[in-house]
Amino acid sequence: MYRMYDMIMKKRNGAEHTADEIRFIVEGFTKGEIPDYQMSAWLMCVYYKGMTHDETCALTHAMAESGDQLSLAAIHGVKVDKHSTGGVGDKTTFIVAPILASLGVPVAKMSGRGLGHTGGTIDKLEAIPGFCVSIPETEFIEHVNSMKLALVGQTGDLAPADKKIYALRDVTATVDSLPLIASSIMSKKLAAGADAIVLDVKCGSGAFMKNETDAKALAQIMVDIGKSAGRTCYGVITDMNEPLGCKVGNALEVIEAVQVLSMKDVKPYLTYDTSGDTDVQSRCDAYSAIENIAQQGYGADRTDKADCAGMENCAGYDRHGIHRLLTVSLTLAAYMYMAAGKSDDFEAAKAQCEKAIESGAALAKFKEFVEAQGGDGTYIDDVNKFRLAANCVPIVCEEDGYLAACNTSEVGMVNLILGGGRATKDSTINLGVGLDIRKHLGDAVRKGDVLAYMYIDDMGVFEEAKKRLLGAYTVEQRQIKPEKLVKDIVV
Amino acid sequence: MYRMYDMIMKKRNGAEHTADEIRFIVEGFTKGEIPDYQMSAWLMCVYYKGMTHDETCALTHAMAESGDQLSLAAIHGVKVDKHSTGGVGDKTTFIVAPILASLGVPVAKMSGRGLGHTGGTIDKLEAIPGFCVSIPETEFIEHVNSMKLALVGQTGDLAPADKKIYALRDVTATVDSLPLIASSIMSKKLAAGADAIVLDVKCGSGAFMKNETDAKALAQIMVDIGKSAGRTCYGVITDMNEPLGCKVGNALEVIEAVQVLSMKDVKPYLTYDTSGDTDVQSRCDAYSAIENIAQQGYGADRTDKADCAGMENCAGYDRHGIHRLLTVSLTLAAYMYMAAGKSDDFEAAKAQCEKAIESGAALAKFKEFVEAQGGDGTYIDDVNKFRLAANCVPIVCEEDGYLAACNTSEVGMVNLILGGGRATKDSTINLGVGLDIRKHLGDAVRKGDVLAYMYIDDMGVFEEAKKRLLGAYTVEQRQIKPEKLVKDIVV
Repeated sequence: MYRMYDMIMKKRNGAEHTADEIRFIVEGFTKGEIPDYQMSAWLMCVYYKGMTHDETCALTHAMAESGDQLSLAAIHGVKVDKHSTGGVGDKTTFIVAPILASLGVPVAKMSGRGLGHTGGTIDKLEAIPGFCVSIPETEFIEHVNSMKLALVGQTGDLAPADKKIYALRDVTATVDSLPLIASSIMSKKLAAGADAIVLDVKCGSGAFMKNETDAKALAQIMVDIGKSAGRTCYGVITDMNEPLGCKVGNALEVIEAVQVLSMKDVKPYLTYDTSGDTDVQSRCDAYSAIENIAQQGYGADRTDKADCAGMENCAGYDRHGIHRLLTVSLTLAAYMYMAAGKSDDFEAAKAQCEKAIESGAALAKFKEFVEAQGGDGTYIDDVNKFRLAANCVPIVCEEDGYLAACNTSEVGMVNLILGGGRATKDSTINLGVGLDIRKHLGDAVRKGDVLAYMYIDDMGVFEEAKKRLLGAYTVEQRQIKPEKLVKDIVV
Repeated sequence: MYRMYDMIMKKRNGAEHTADEIRFIVEGFTKGEIPDYQMSAWLMCVYYKGMTHDETCALTHAMAESGDQLSLAAIHGVKVDKHSTGGVGDKTTFIVAPILASLGVPVAKMSGRGLGHTGGTIDKLEAIPGFCVSIPETEFIEHVNSMKLALVGQTGDLAPADKKIYALRDVTATVDSLPLIASSIMSKKLAAGADAIVLDVKCGSGAFMKNETDAKALAQIMVDIGKSAGRTCYGVITDMNEPLGCKVGNALEVIEAVQVLSMKDVKPYLTYDTSGDTDVQSRCDAYSAIENIAQQGYGADRTDKADCAGMENCAGYDRHGIHRLLTVSLTLAAYMYMAAGKSDDFEAAKAQCEKAIESGAALAKFKEFVEAQGGDGTYIDDVNKFRLAANCVPIVCEEDGYLAACNTSEVGMVNLILGGGRATKDSTINLGVGLDIRKHLGDAVRKGDVLAYMYIDDMGVFEEAKKRLLGAYTVEQRQIKPEKLVKDIVV
């Protein structure tokens, strides 16, 4: 019989726990036999002393086994899942899931709600009237079998140990520990039952992991856990030093995903050069070209919304932002395709995924999925139907120079201030507010240029939101070269 | 307004708290506004990251100010206190307090009960029938004024913050942190109001501090806190690699202290050479000399107790053990005398203290003190009156060689197993059990030699107690040189 005191002392002194000890800790805490104050002391020891591979795997398994474990055995084929460690403007799920499903790969997705500066997949989908995330397990499995795609909210019984431990970490400053983050994520992924998992590990000012070294370390731990549980795993390290794409906000992000899925030709966006070396003139030329693409109908913004202030500046589409979103999405989709065993060549896999967009198959799949879960599919046909905030206010740059840095979490916080996020678990959120960002790192900016359009209902928070958005960006006189978008692949 | 989450994060990342932040933490936790789980996380951060001098002082003051603070202003003269960080067989208080009082230095002592492997001064004194430690504050002050010595148990209102924090540290493996230990001790010392404090910092296998470096560091932190509060402070680092003196147990330790206070000539014990260099023959000679001293009446053991098994081996007195106890006691007493401003020369101060023993003044003062607090003074006249355990069993060495090491905490645990200590705060204790140890580090031992006499009531625990006592000592073939007894003085 173990004693929690001894467990704290052992970890405090840097020794390695056995799998039995880890199970004792997780089970004891979940059952309420180990008090919060001992658990938080132990978690702080883990923060300082870390965990070995074996310890982290044991922790993950103990948490995965603490509640229900979905059996996806009834679903034919290699079930593939994708997980993002969380960022701002991350709407890749709405792009990659229909791509994979349209290519015949079953995607049985379990998603969460947003908290703090990051948005939640489920909140975003609820911007589509009628969409329901709480479908029964049998229906969920049936949908994946029949049309290869279904999405449910996380059930209360999935890895309850993780839920309880995370709640404690959240108030005791023990969230940012690699083994604790990795085991938290992977416990839910393992319990959710997918055969293959692609992990999008965000890296930068809007992510848990601020630098590439930490992001790669986290990805490696998660991939190793997945492999030890017999799952195929890839870790994709992607940039989160500015929001992904242009739009931040619940309905806005679904709109942007639909815009990407509506593309007839992705090449101009994929080959677009965002590197800081490009001279300013050629970048401006590139931007002019966007207007044409915008006219093709899939990139056009809502120029017809009468009650939107400043919409005269909204026309056109931001090629730089779309380039980033599309590149990350297609990379993730290609690795999911490979993880499903459909290809062993990245370029070939990616080409398949591009085709799924350009053929309209992915968009059609997305609409089918939305309708199957009760959503109004006409919103996918015409994104102008989404209810957005009453006001759309351009926020302009206040000085000439180049965008040199973005405090991305702060941009996420602006959305929260607008009412689009949750400060606490019980907050209600406004799905129509958000930002449409038109300048990106490395871009030249002039005083008066539109940095972003702010979709806002409550003008009482406008000054604070504006101040914080402008404060989130740093303008310098020298052009910087933006960070690499896809930084590394961990296998 | 501070948030505890931010405090945890700040200390976790190694930053320094302001005095206001420390006060927020201590007050918030004491009032129950900061939950245990956040406090234990913060304490673990302090364990790993430490505290600066200013932080430690702020913590000490915040805890000292959390409850009642004794004013000893009504007592004339420089009030001097002594504190031991806790060891096994430490009965120095019963020796130094009457010495100082007999020399006219007011000793207003507040003491605690024992927990775990260390005994408590109050428990020991309660072996004297009638002795009462809960005297009212006015009477306490009156006693110190009239006869220079009084002793009370710690009141519930003295540094309640420390009490609550200690209880949490005790179950979350955050006890052994230098700034936390130092502030815990000093908060009570400051609140108890003495003008001068001598700190006996124990060092070795039976102490919190296992090595001299840590012990000196702890002593320095405590002395610095005391000085910052305007108190005269000395730190005396003493050896705790084996029990101090011979006797371990509540009544037994009072008996040993009375035996020391009864000495007519302390010199032979002070000059006794315990160093490992002495050849074995000369050490044996020294032991033979003990028999004579024992015949003088003050060192004689209880040879007349009919119900004591094996008492034929109990005669004689252990010169080595008494040498250690006497040396530490006189060093502490001399520094207390100096701290009281009575002398600035150690040797002169020590000579005064020796005289207080040899003249019988200290013994008389001890008896006066015992009677003033309701105790039966005839027990001091005749220590044979103390109720000891029903059985006195010699525990013999099992091999030839030299005592090379002692796991002193384990010896303390043997007393606990015998019923003489508290496993938990609510345990009741048997005051008559314990050990009378006859071999010390560096001593030559032969198979069959008496290592110790075990005073035991419940023979059901005998085998375990015996096994653990023998297991606590290491016998080797090479004689070792015992550690220096008084290792250092910190000012």
